[in-house]
Amino acid sequence: MSHAPSPALERRHRTIRTALSDLGLDAIVVTSMPNVLYLTNFTGSSAILVLTPDAVHFLTDFRYVTTVRETQESASACPGLDLIRIEGSYDAALAGVLASLPIAKVGFEAAHLTVSRHQWLARTLPHGASSGPELVPTEGVVERARAIKDAYEIDTLREAGRRLSAVAREAVREVRRGRSEEEVAHAIDARILAAGFSRTAFETIVAGGPNAALPHAHPGKRTFDEGDLVVLDFGGVYDSYCVDLTRTVSVGPAGRRQREVYAAVLDAHDRAIAAVEPGTSRFDIDAAARSTLAGYGLAEAFGHGTGHGLGVEVHEDPRITRRHPDVDGRDEAVAAGMVFTIEPGAYLPTWGGVRIEDDVLVTPAGVELLTDAPTDLIEI
Amino acid sequence: MSHAPSPALERRHRTIRTALSDLGLDAIVVTSMPNVLYLTNFTGSSAILVLTPDAVHFLTDFRYVTTVRETQESASACPGLDLIRIEGSYDAALAGVLASLPIAKVGFEAAHLTVSRHQWLARTLPHGASSGPELVPTEGVVERARAIKDAYEIDTLREAGRRLSAVAREAVREVRRGRSEEEVAHAIDARILAAGFSRTAFETIVAGGPNAALPHAHPGKRTFDEGDLVVLDFGGVYDSYCVDLTRTVSVGPAGRRQREVYAAVLDAHDRAIAAVEPGTSRFDIDAAARSTLAGYGLAEAFGHGTGHGLGVEVHEDPRITRRHPDVDGRDEAVAAGMVFTIEPGAYLPTWGGVRIEDDVLVTPAGVELLTDAPTDLIEI
Repeated sequence: MSHAPSPALERRHRTIRTALSDLGLDAIVVTSMPNVLYLTNFTGSSAILVLTPDAVHFLTDFRYVTTVRETQESASACPGLDLIRIEGSYDAALAGVLASLPIAKVGFEAAHLTVSRHQWLARTLPHGASSGPELVPTEGVVERARAIKDAYEIDTLREAGRRLSAVAREAVREVRRGRSEEEVAHAIDARILAAGFSRTAFETIVAGGPNAALPHAHPGKRTFDEGDLVVLDFGGVYDSYCVDLTRTVSVGPAGRRQREVYAAVLDAHDRAIAAVEPGTSRFDIDAAARSTLAGYGLAEAFGHGTGHGLGVEVHEDPRITRRHPDVDGRDEAVAAGMVFTIEPGAYLPTWGGVRIEDDVLVTPAGVELLTDAPTDLIEI
Repeated sequence: MSHAPSPALERRHRTIRTALSDLGLDAIVVTSMPNVLYLTNFTGSSAILVLTPDAVHFLTDFRYVTTVRETQESASACPGLDLIRIEGSYDAALAGVLASLPIAKVGFEAAHLTVSRHQWLARTLPHGASSGPELVPTEGVVERARAIKDAYEIDTLREAGRRLSAVAREAVREVRRGRSEEEVAHAIDARILAAGFSRTAFETIVAGGPNAALPHAHPGKRTFDEGDLVVLDFGGVYDSYCVDLTRTVSVGPAGRRQREVYAAVLDAHDRAIAAVEPGTSRFDIDAAARSTLAGYGLAEAFGHGTGHGLGVEVHEDPRITRRHPDVDGRDEAVAAGMVFTIEPGAYLPTWGGVRIEDDVLVTPAGVELLTDAPTDLIEI
């Protein structure tokens, strides 16, 4: 497994420190594990970091100490890392570290700290002037940095996209009359692992016939038969980075309505991709897909967003969604370095569904496709 | 996939309603997805429920509405379900539901609601007397009920344990000289899926030689050679319930020190299992394993807890851990119906490690092993 090189981590720390300074904060407690991974290369499941202007205080337990020490001797060492081995509870150790640092205001990740943990920390930290630091809620400080991929991340995502595209070309051939959704899902999972991914990015979706109308169906015992449309949606994690791809195939020759719906979804997919360039609103990219489907009378059939960011998480910023009064409207324009999916679909209860998904990178010039597999309707 | 029958869900709701009444609450907002699954049979990834004395208000989005309606027509229907389809944000819909109900005090899951979401809800709900309900933090209301498995859950976990034991007997034979950790991990994953599990319960661990000293190593390219001890730790999700098993094998004849450490861990494993019966403290079960290892001079080599509960999550209550000043000491005694792992280990940096893990059910009479695979040291 490769890791981000130390200079890339250094740049990421600098971005976060600038954001903290703008917020009037002396430090930030990072409890989101994807954010910890992004800032340190740590791939374990438990750690907390406290990023200050000159250090990365890193709390982890026995299970991970050896691995962290090894990484620190490599070209992927985390700059400024101060490794603190925890013996009891993480939050008790965190309170100790915070009380020991010369800081007055420390941000925490309000979207990643539960009310329980916050209450406990607020109760435990020493109070009053000149004693413990004040805990200040922050939103998306690290996530906003993560949304713009650096050169190491783009290389990794390109390689992941190439590998997933190769899987996709084989995966569509796994669908056969008489095979079950579950069997095909397992075959696709095996291909994902054989292609060098460390794991699938989510539970693979194989949904045929009426099940294809459920955008998040679990693969079941249903076997494929003539006339089915089959949605295959799968992803892999490569060197900690997630990619995600969907194709829909027809078992036997597709009927007229199936061809129409497929063509409409493909048109929405193509138009949304064509809308991607730096400065475009993420809501407008969604609207490019949505209005295309509406033009085919399929407005009601497309109930989810057009896409989601990809990175160390399979769903991250930017969210390519409908503009909605109670959905956060910040950070509206997409920018070079963003990576996200474009995945319009049409779902008609009892009839079935179609979804076509690719992964794109926003470039200074416009858009680059990270995945590349045929999008013509395949008839098995 | 089978689901808990409606009468089992009814009993679970009654348990929670009694707990709410004891806490002086009129309702509870459940945002933890494993808790939602436990109370409704819902296996999707997004939903919120509001359990009141006479209904289960269930908020989900477009993606899951069809599946929920289908389950509601089966023998696994959730009693009292009021399905609310969300169009925009979950929290906005939740605020609307809460404001519409005739309730004064509503609990929320403090360990599963982030500070961000809590702040938003508290700001959004109408304030003042006779208007919106007061939000009251609760801890572990549903988790405490989940810790005692009902008959349906015990049947499911028994079947899952049988299947994982069959996988284990084959898995140990996957280790061969010249094969890599990654290859063996993929072969085990394929066996887990072929055995009827819907997915692995966590990333399979295959760690050989010095890597076996890292209790949570990722499987890598390292190939096995004469003299390696190899830790195999894997689990599966069967009908939403998780089981977990570890064996350690020797490549070629084990050396003297390897046999000693193996025998010590096996003794700790056996003594911890022998200590399980209703009324025993979970800390004393841990101490049975820990003191056994200490008797072999391996106190320092065992850095993690002896076990964790199993159910719809792979790590849940009860936690079989050391008694520690800052670890929660509530609910100390284990009780009939609890299911957890017993998994002592010994890890010696650079030398390697051993872990042996089985799953147990606390019965009125004592203990029942849910997993059953040979524990003698296998030399490949």
